[in-house]
Amino acid sequence: MKPLFLSSSDAKRLDLSRLLDPAAIAIVGASTDPLSISGQPLRFMLEAGYQGRLYPVNPNRDEVLGVKAWPNVLAVPRPCDVAVVAVSAPRVPAVLRQCGEAGIPFAVILTAGFAEIGAAGAPMQSELDAAIAASGVRVVGPNCVGVMNIATRAYSAFGAALSDASLRAGPMAIVSQSGGFGQSMMAFANAQGIGVSYVVSCGNEADLTFFDFAHYFLERDDIKVIAAYMEASVEGIGLRRLGRHALEKGKPILMLKTGNSDVSRRAASSHTGKLTGDYKLFHETFREGGFIEIPELDALADVARLVMGGKYPRGRNVGVLTGSGGWGVHIAEHCDRAGLKLPPPSAAVQERLRALQSTFASINNPIDHMANYRDQHRALACLVDDPAFDQLIVRSAAGPVAPQWTERFLEIAGRTEKPIIVSWASTPARAVDLRTKLEDAGFLCTNYASRAAHAAALFTEFAMKRSRFAQPVPAAERAAAPVPLPQLTAASGTLSEHASKDIISRYGIATAREVLLPLNEILRLHTLPLPAPLAVKLASPDIAHKTEAGAVRLGVDSLEALKRAAAEVHAAGLQYRPGARIEGISIQEMARGIEVILGAVNDPSFGPYVMVGLGGVWTELLHDVAHRFAPLGVAEAKEMIAELKGARVFEGYRGAPAADVDALAQAMVALSWLVVDHGEHITEVDINPLFVRAQGVVAADALIVLGENPSADV
Amino acid sequence: MKPLFLSSSDAKRLDLSRLLDPAAIAIVGASTDPLSISGQPLRFMLEAGYQGRLYPVNPNRDEVLGVKAWPNVLAVPRPCDVAVVAVSAPRVPAVLRQCGEAGIPFAVILTAGFAEIGAAGAPMQSELDAAIAASGVRVVGPNCVGVMNIATRAYSAFGAALSDASLRAGPMAIVSQSGGFGQSMMAFANAQGIGVSYVVSCGNEADLTFFDFAHYFLERDDIKVIAAYMEASVEGIGLRRLGRHALEKGKPILMLKTGNSDVSRRAASSHTGKLTGDYKLFHETFREGGFIEIPELDALADVARLVMGGKYPRGRNVGVLTGSGGWGVHIAEHCDRAGLKLPPPSAAVQERLRALQSTFASINNPIDHMANYRDQHRALACLVDDPAFDQLIVRSAAGPVAPQWTERFLEIAGRTEKPIIVSWASTPARAVDLRTKLEDAGFLCTNYASRAAHAAALFTEFAMKRSRFAQPVPAAERAAAPVPLPQLTAASGTLSEHASKDIISRYGIATAREVLLPLNEILRLHTLPLPAPLAVKLASPDIAHKTEAGAVRLGVDSLEALKRAAAEVHAAGLQYRPGARIEGISIQEMARGIEVILGAVNDPSFGPYVMVGLGGVWTELLHDVAHRFAPLGVAEAKEMIAELKGARVFEGYRGAPAADVDALAQAMVALSWLVVDHGEHITEVDINPLFVRAQGVVAADALIVLGENPSADV
Repeated sequence: MKPLFLSSSDAKRLDLSRLLDPAAIAIVGASTDPLSISGQPLRFMLEAGYQGRLYPVNPNRDEVLGVKAWPNVLAVPRPCDVAVVAVSAPRVPAVLRQCGEAGIPFAVILTAGFAEIGAAGAPMQSELDAAIAASGVRVVGPNCVGVMNIATRAYSAFGAALSDASLRAGPMAIVSQSGGFGQSMMAFANAQGIGVSYVVSCGNEADLTFFDFAHYFLERDDIKVIAAYMEASVEGIGLRRLGRHALEKGKPILMLKTGNSDVSRRAASSHTGKLTGDYKLFHETFREGGFIEIPELDALADVARLVMGGKYPRGRNVGVLTGSGGWGVHIAEHCDRAGLKLPPPSAAVQERLRALQSTFASINNPIDHMANYRDQHRALACLVDDPAFDQLIVRSAAGPVAPQWTERFLEIAGRTEKPIIVSWASTPARAVDLRTKLEDAGFLCTNYASRAAHAAALFTEFAMKRSRFAQPVPAAERAAAPVPLPQLTAASGTLSEHASKDIISRYGIATAREVLLPLNEILRLHTLPLPAPLAVKLASPDIAHKTEAGAVRLGVDSLEALKRAAAEVHAAGLQYRPGARIEGISIQEMARGIEVILGAVNDPSFGPYVMVGLGGVWTELLHDVAHRFAPLGVAEAKEMIAELKGARVFEGYRGAPAADVDALAQAMVALSWLVVDHGEHITEVDINPLFVRAQGVVAADALIVLGENPSADV
Repeated sequence: MKPLFLSSSDAKRLDLSRLLDPAAIAIVGASTDPLSISGQPLRFMLEAGYQGRLYPVNPNRDEVLGVKAWPNVLAVPRPCDVAVVAVSAPRVPAVLRQCGEAGIPFAVILTAGFAEIGAAGAPMQSELDAAIAASGVRVVGPNCVGVMNIATRAYSAFGAALSDASLRAGPMAIVSQSGGFGQSMMAFANAQGIGVSYVVSCGNEADLTFFDFAHYFLERDDIKVIAAYMEASVEGIGLRRLGRHALEKGKPILMLKTGNSDVSRRAASSHTGKLTGDYKLFHETFREGGFIEIPELDALADVARLVMGGKYPRGRNVGVLTGSGGWGVHIAEHCDRAGLKLPPPSAAVQERLRALQSTFASINNPIDHMANYRDQHRALACLVDDPAFDQLIVRSAAGPVAPQWTERFLEIAGRTEKPIIVSWASTPARAVDLRTKLEDAGFLCTNYASRAAHAAALFTEFAMKRSRFAQPVPAAERAAAPVPLPQLTAASGTLSEHASKDIISRYGIATAREVLLPLNEILRLHTLPLPAPLAVKLASPDIAHKTEAGAVRLGVDSLEALKRAAAEVHAAGLQYRPGARIEGISIQEMARGIEVILGAVNDPSFGPYVMVGLGGVWTELLHDVAHRFAPLGVAEAKEMIAELKGARVFEGYRGAPAADVDALAQAMVALSWLVVDHGEHITEVDINPLFVRAQGVVAADALIVLGENPSADV
């Protein structure tokens, strides 16, 4: 975890308890049409048995669905915790002001027709914003399906889920940027036995945001896991801060983020009226913080079950115990796809397995005990002790042996601190009691090998982050204190190659040897100023893209060629940009090695990050680039390098010596500190190419772009 | 589909009806222990109500489970269709010989302890093989869980599935190389409402094979879809022939193939005692034939449902109609991942949607009708007619509106020939009657966006193959008749570069201009024989790997350099292999362009195939290679090129002109015909590098390896 950034936020201390656990609710615009939006909150709270006070507000009626109605919220008896607003858009601002006068602290605005419909809704949105500010009421929505409390059936909401009498409260809370989807998440979790206590639909987030709800639930002791659906853009640094808060609390946020592909981004934009950002920084944010990114709803209940089991794997090593060879192979295949490892059992445990003298088809991993389920617990007892495994996946018995198998499994599995996932052999309608027994004891049972492997892999990554975070933060891996760079304060725009290289070299990144001379001096030279081959470049603060300007010559290998090259780049530069200021001609040693692109960007939303890619076609055609937020440690830098598709090129390709990956990682760490230390000035650093040699690295070109940046540490 | 290969096979005509629909079954070794293997077949057939005749064979008892027992199979009344054999391994061969004498045509051997346990089982396997040959009995197994007929409850089998009274017969048949897994497939399909009529566990395949069963089921009119689990190696050409048979019948084989990763391959090997082959050719086989490859059991029932719906999409364009914006985005995301397209509705249909004057949040795709499910059928009626869409995914209503929605959906959806998948909004336990109604009408309903998209994508690829296959085969895209190559008959081993290039050029692949001269003539030259730069290579039939021998010089650009290079490669070759025969020194024009590797291999299992990759790091570090079986058409060759990760390099990278992809495709087609026409001699062709220029291609090196190959057309 980054040591410097993302301090805790006041958002954590926002008290939403009256909104989420209300004792009295006014329903403004309550109607009698049970299928209309305004008819649903009252109807379904009555049907579901909400025990708090309900105040329908409808000036045209004395009662609604048998409940006394009130002409406006000012008439409603105090104290009232929440006003559900379902009147037409033009009437919403006035209602909100009245809520303020009436001392109602929260309003849930179901009404649509604001910012989400584009330009047509903008005036209404402005009026609403003004009313929110003037009233002091904290607002959920507008354009949301509302807030549901499942335990008390306080439904400040509408939607198909409200009619489901089978909903049960539990350790999950859901925050969703799509109301319909949030209710679906609850229904899925419930259908798979995971209770949900709260569902919040954020709507347009005119006041209370996604973050407010998520931070609040992290602080609630009764909530063990948060599920989130996100499609619109959010402030990146806020999302990173939320991730840190989740790690502090040791609770995962199960994140279903859509709008990642072109087609879904377009769809998301037309859904919420907001654009979604570049996925890569979201991905880094999820990896960094206490998030578990899930692509589909199945993982929601599966991972929640593992969280509730309370056993966290220390690593990726999985032992698989099966009674069907085919299932063993199938599970192994999916574990492999999910990035889990299947090492063999330790020698001692193999010995113990052999000593059982039972019917093993294999004591390798998967351990195939054939159909001998009656004896499986003896093998399981050996495997749970094996330090070779961080966790286990065990194929259950089905049919007549299943009850006995379940008892014996619980006896052994209850003893270990390692998580065990059950590859459940009975189809959903069979042996339901046994499955429930296992689930109640904290075990995930799943029919699908892919779900077992996927849930194990997701939970393992979270468990490993959680345990790293809990350890004392190691001393920051930086060479020295921030290097003062007073030149940044004076300058603006794009720095020259020379000035840029000077700055990166102060941060310890070696640059190619260089001589800067005026053209006329070069034309008078008698020997080469540096060993050939040379690169010859025009140095001008007005020409940032020298190659484009024709102001670069490479591979210059004689004095004659040098003079010709110098004259040419000088002329080309002046033709490209007449009147450009010329600092001279830069003569540089041509570096060799593996060509790498290093960059750092101070993203206005997410904060500074570093990127690395292999040069040339790798970056341009394959987008073979890795990203991490700054500052970086050496281990993270090496992880980034290993992520590159072409990483094997560093190992020594076609007889070349292995490249100095350590030096590359050091350069990445240094670059990350440069952009952190001077983030208020530096917008972007581009080192392209950087050559990685058998020993050390050397930057052949660099470009620093300045700007006034907000501090990422807000 | 390949026009020349894979003629139909006698396997299609094998009659297994007495095995699969037996009227009388002997159970040899029938015991009274209901949990032992030998106790299960009789017990569960009695419990399940099999109506045929049952003959337990047990010399020690007068009856087993109340059924009269017989001392041996010779004593069993004729005619008996199947003997289920569950005696110990050493006794199996004698039982089999008796079955032959008794005229029992089929034996299902459940007993293990043969080839699958390795060297220890080899003698038993040999005895068994001899008994099979001598008896004339057709055998399933050994080491299998047997054969199940669900309709009649004829269970020549054991396993947990036999005790499931809820099993229903239906249009699916299952063939599995893992008995336990095959029964799981049936249970999964059944649990999702897809009936299975037959489950066959192949076991060691000592006689009847996976292919025999699969071909047989393709010929059965009552079987509409076959599901298969495969982990061990099978004959590649046989698998390709099965794929063709499936296309002929227009029925898909849903193939769950494991043993593809290192870890699962190791596991599969210890499960079946057989090695699995290289996955890439399996993948090509599945793509070529009537297979639908599935990674997980969920797709089994989903795709079967689409097959039963009987509506085949013409292409990948999907229209998504949703009432939840979030669900629209989520579905779009998964469609995109699955390779489906979401074009906007046609202008005319957009016009019709607008004319509905309803509550659309978007009439782009996804079409977001908000929560207006009562009106959704009017939008659906517009969309089903839109030629922009080959198929639709429609989000259903849940809650009180659901019954009305279902009626109206069925009315509109029943009219169209386009498949429509329902993204089902109710959780599994709710609205079961409505879901069943939709399923009975042939619609796939699924809770998961990923499953909807995945099933649609898999089914679409099959539908497109099916429709291409049904069209008249176009005239083969070859330039000419086979080119006679009498030189192949005389030669053996590896041909020289010169001879190899001569052969490929006869098939129309241009080679670099070349002059072959003795060293002493080169040393006397006064001018360069070809324009510089030149490649200089030693030509010797004894030195196949010239670079390794130091016998290549590139970029030779003067007469002096040519003479030096010629002397050097000559000396280097003789040092590398003293006494090597020297044909001369080959002086070649240096080709330029994009470097490509072209190859063809006559695989002993699968037959000939062609591969293409980008040169250098692309192939070596990224394994960026595409494969297809030979012969190829131009369209297939272009598909292969487009598959390469670095394919964009052909479009003109960094200002280079676009490369002549047409010429590359032609060369690939030509190479494919070379290896087909002369497959009995050519084992491998390696053209490396081939340069793709702005116009045309040129092969700079080539190597042909000869051998005696079996004909792939057997």
